[in-house]
Amino acid sequence: MRFSARSHALPASPIRRLEPFAAEAREKGKKIYPLHIGQPDIETPELFFETLRKFDSKTLAYGTSQGDLDLIDRIVEYYAKFGIPIEREDLLVTNGGSEALNFAVSIACDPGDSILVPEPFFPAYAAFAASANAEIRPITTLAEEGFHLPSRGEIEKLIDTSTRAILLSHPGNPTGVVYTEEEVKMLSDIAREHDLLLIADEVYREFVYMDEPYLSFGNIERIRDRLVIVDSVSKRYSACGARIGCLVSKNREFISLGLKYCQARGCSPTLEQLGAAALYETPDSYLSEVNEEYRKRRDILFEGLNGIPGIVCRKPEGAFYIMARLPVDDAEKFIIWMLQEFSVDGETVMAAPAEGFYATPGLGSSEIRMAYVLKEEDLKRAVELLAKGISAYPGRTDR
Amino acid sequence: MRFSARSHALPASPIRRLEPFAAEAREKGKKIYPLHIGQPDIETPELFFETLRKFDSKTLAYGTSQGDLDLIDRIVEYYAKFGIPIEREDLLVTNGGSEALNFAVSIACDPGDSILVPEPFFPAYAAFAASANAEIRPITTLAEEGFHLPSRGEIEKLIDTSTRAILLSHPGNPTGVVYTEEEVKMLSDIAREHDLLLIADEVYREFVYMDEPYLSFGNIERIRDRLVIVDSVSKRYSACGARIGCLVSKNREFISLGLKYCQARGCSPTLEQLGAAALYETPDSYLSEVNEEYRKRRDILFEGLNGIPGIVCRKPEGAFYIMARLPVDDAEKFIIWMLQEFSVDGETVMAAPAEGFYATPGLGSSEIRMAYVLKEEDLKRAVELLAKGISAYPGRTDR
Repeated sequence: MRFSARSHALPASPIRRLEPFAAEAREKGKKIYPLHIGQPDIETPELFFETLRKFDSKTLAYGTSQGDLDLIDRIVEYYAKFGIPIEREDLLVTNGGSEALNFAVSIACDPGDSILVPEPFFPAYAAFAASANAEIRPITTLAEEGFHLPSRGEIEKLIDTSTRAILLSHPGNPTGVVYTEEEVKMLSDIAREHDLLLIADEVYREFVYMDEPYLSFGNIERIRDRLVIVDSVSKRYSACGARIGCLVSKNREFISLGLKYCQARGCSPTLEQLGAAALYETPDSYLSEVNEEYRKRRDILFEGLNGIPGIVCRKPEGAFYIMARLPVDDAEKFIIWMLQEFSVDGETVMAAPAEGFYATPGLGSSEIRMAYVLKEEDLKRAVELLAKGISAYPGRTDR
Repeated sequence: MRFSARSHALPASPIRRLEPFAAEAREKGKKIYPLHIGQPDIETPELFFETLRKFDSKTLAYGTSQGDLDLIDRIVEYYAKFGIPIEREDLLVTNGGSEALNFAVSIACDPGDSILVPEPFFPAYAAFAASANAEIRPITTLAEEGFHLPSRGEIEKLIDTSTRAILLSHPGNPTGVVYTEEEVKMLSDIAREHDLLLIADEVYREFVYMDEPYLSFGNIERIRDRLVIVDSVSKRYSACGARIGCLVSKNREFISLGLKYCQARGCSPTLEQLGAAALYETPDSYLSEVNEEYRKRRDILFEGLNGIPGIVCRKPEGAFYIMARLPVDDAEKFIIWMLQEFSVDGETVMAAPAEGFYATPGLGSSEIRMAYVLKEEDLKRAVELLAKGISAYPGRTDR
């Protein structure tokens, strides 16, 4: 008996794959500062839990496949605030942003088709492409350039008859890049001219630390018919465990195909949708306080890393991740070593090895992704541990 | 811009597709007895809601991709009661039985591969096969034979080098069939001899109305290495809206491939997993009372249908559905007519058109699936309305 080649090709998550090493270290009594996963320590607005406590039906029934209309209406209102005009009919509620991404890739691609993705990228993109038998054509971006895009010509070279879509996260996970107006418009023009779907994963849209306002692909009128926005409450309201996201598109054919995928899996969880609807009533002050907190954390982590000899990284403009090149032989080996061999006063730090964030072979092997989702003092301690770890690591390359 | 052929091939759910007609009828003030969807009116055990109310973390965090270990341990204990020896490592928690089915089909099949499925079948199977670019080879079963299986020779004729798996629901949705020991063993032998994966969707295992005990595929020792059981709390504990299911397999390669799919989508909802773990503490008396209630409902619906001239159906042995052939030109047209044109004292009834439960073209076009998930008096009224509807329907064929 053999299982599908697609399943063998599916990458294991570089973010979650090393969990067994962490579990082992914890069992031995080690304290780990978790920078590997985007799991904020920020509190979920209490409204979420209050709403669930008030649920008074006796039967926990299915919802509709499209999603709870009250939640949908709140999301519609949310987008209206940013000048992105969507209606009920343009939205499907999904099991987290992940399911939205999975559906979008499956709708865009038949086996053998390809999608352009700026790399490094969120590794689930590679998994969803593999499960759809589609190929990722990476648009390589570099730490040295702050992960901004190459020229239009460079990008267009990657396009051929198999190309169906451009998929990107904006602000960028893991890069922290926030594209300039010129970049957003360039990608929009490429999508239009080459007749591609544009799938914009904008789950970090509230996490932008620049002076200029954030420009969503939803604000570019001329691509409204070929744009799909992926969104989620996970990061915005620190509700990762709710698994509530959505697909937004003015392309009615896309939505009607998406609805069939939604029907096949029944519905998103009923209570979590009620809770998510309540989250959208959270006062704006919550989001601005959280933003302020992350900006502070970014500065602490970035400055801390800059003080470690041999590390290369750029200051992120958004999201809550930073990519760093380490002076080590192999970032994954280094992280496992940090979990298994290293500790200071019984403490160590965990990051995600970055190779799985790239499609181009060989890239990222000495890089890590860190999430600045911990409190100030914890972040400072994590940086200290990282510095000591690099200095003690036997596979250090800059000695 | 064109979207994937796979997405166009994906069938719309025959269970949910006619919802817009129902919504329209409700808006006009019509009361609809919903027999189209397996949404029980049985109460969810209060333990579920109590557990959620007691949740006291401030942050709703991601869980692990495999699933909550406490929930997993409860499911392991549940199976032990039936002599099905599984361990923690054999189990992945999923977003409902649906996600489990979707993963199982993707793991079994590459594009162009095929799976054997007794028809009529749960329509999501066709959607998951389409989304994996796999083909369903139907094992046709007949109402006249109580939807029991054809001979081994008939089934083996469908197998060729593209065949990867047998997928079935047991007890059967929509057929209500409970396979005999001979049938269970025959399918097991076919799987072994032809080196196929056996995917047994046993979410209705507690809903069996026969004197003989229910025989799970999990009880057949010689296929343990090629068996995948799909399970869910949705029907067992009337918690459809929780979206918590699981994949169970002693095949470690299958589970390790499945874990990658789980990692790609992060995790199942955190709170719902806690609630589901509590559900497994529900006293057995709940399940036996529910079973008794469904047996009564089955008898009411079956006897009621039997009294309607021109209807063909057999008494279901399990699950909570009944398939019936109606004396009408087209079952879907008839259902839409019942929603749009028909009512008695402002009331009508809704069923699922059965054509989408078949892969063989033309089959099922005059059949409907009904779920006996309503209270005694509601079921009686639904049958009455159905009888009057058939009698008044202009496309009746037995006049």
